Amino acid sequence: MAAAPIDELVRLLAKLPGLGPRSARRAALALLRRPDTLLAPLLTALELCARTVRRCSLCGNLDTADPCALCTDPNRDPDLVLVVEQVEDLWAMERAGAFRGRYHVLGGTLSALDAVGPEELGVDRLVRRAAERPGIEVILALSGTVAGQTTAHYLAERLKPTGARITRLGYGLPVGGELNYLDEGTLAAALAGRRPVG
Amino acid sequence: MAAAPIDELVRLLAKLPGLGPRSARRAALALLRRPDTLLAPLLTALELCARTVRRCSLCGNLDTADPCALCTDPNRDPDLVLVVEQVEDLWAMERAGAFRGRYHVLGGTLSALDAVGPEELGVDRLVRRAAERPGIEVILALSGTVAGQTTAHYLAERLKPTGARITRLGYGLPVGGELNYLDEGTLAAALAGRRPVG
Repeated sequence: MAAAPIDELVRLLAKLPGLGPRSARRAALALLRRPDTLLAPLLTALELCARTVRRCSLCGNLDTADPCALCTDPNRDPDLVLVVEQVEDLWAMERAGAFRGRYHVLGGTLSALDAVGPEELGVDRLVRRAAERPGIEVILALSGTVAGQTTAHYLAERLKPTGARITRLGYGLPVGGELNYLDEGTLAAALAGRRPVG
Repeated sequence: MAAAPIDELVRLLAKLPGLGPRSARRAALALLRRPDTLLAPLLTALELCARTVRRCSLCGNLDTADPCALCTDPNRDPDLVLVVEQVEDLWAMERAGAFRGRYHVLGGTLSALDAVGPEELGVDRLVRRAAERPGIEVILALSGTVAGQTTAHYLAERLKPTGARITRLGYGLPVGGELNYLDEGTLAAALAGRRPVG
């Protein structure tokens, strides 16, 4: 209906998560209205990402270097490995600024339906890492979904023979969260995980 | 926090309408996860748009040709001009497939605050077009907002001396719409615009 290049742009933008056909049309027009201040810089950024960003062969993070900046940072503890499902989880953890160890990004969870097995998640690589460093702690920071917890259970079984200390994130009340919006499972876990005050 | 090219990509994607910082991060990762099937085609589409898409000097539409395909289509009635605020309105009208005339895309509405005056909206160009074709009908298809209706009123005043027939879209019940979700103004307008049945 619009010119072919615009239609193609809309079609591709609609494939991005969070954008439907309608918002993809709005996004395309926003780009076409600002050729110099938005379209051209986005073009440059995409081109640079396509050329320089790769997956870290050690941890699965996305970076311009391989191994990535987190894997080679001497100030980060190599005896502490936090396992996350996706790169966005790693980013969220880094924004929190509370973790100074290394990562293992699975890239998903085990799924027979989607043919995602231990190889796809780099489980052997993780087990080898754990086996090579006696005294290592592996923190399983997977999501609380069935898929996440099934995968965490499998990882714990695979890691056990390495002698690594295996932990998971604490459950409880979100900071700033209201009690009456929490589900029963979280409330029970928060109660069980109560800490002395002062 | 992520590599600089990724941060820049996220920053630019967050400027698109409908995307916030969080959805921009998800969109960036979706692109980086599919370098060949999503990132590369989007890069090509953006590059092609940047190189070929321009504004039609007659009607303000976006196309690869100037004048645009709608302005040069011999099957479209040149004595019927529909005035819309934005290119998305033109696209919506074309999807409806109910209009076979030409367009005038204002690119916005009059706004003292944003320094949008008659020049920015190409009003002189529209008035000249109307004056050059005796018997032309100009349909003011602006939105029902205060800004849209103020602009429509101004356009009607400016077009009056040309002798053009000036109309606006009919108000009423949206097709498939439910009566009890409609505001009073629309209901009153739909009642006033009632038509004989059969």
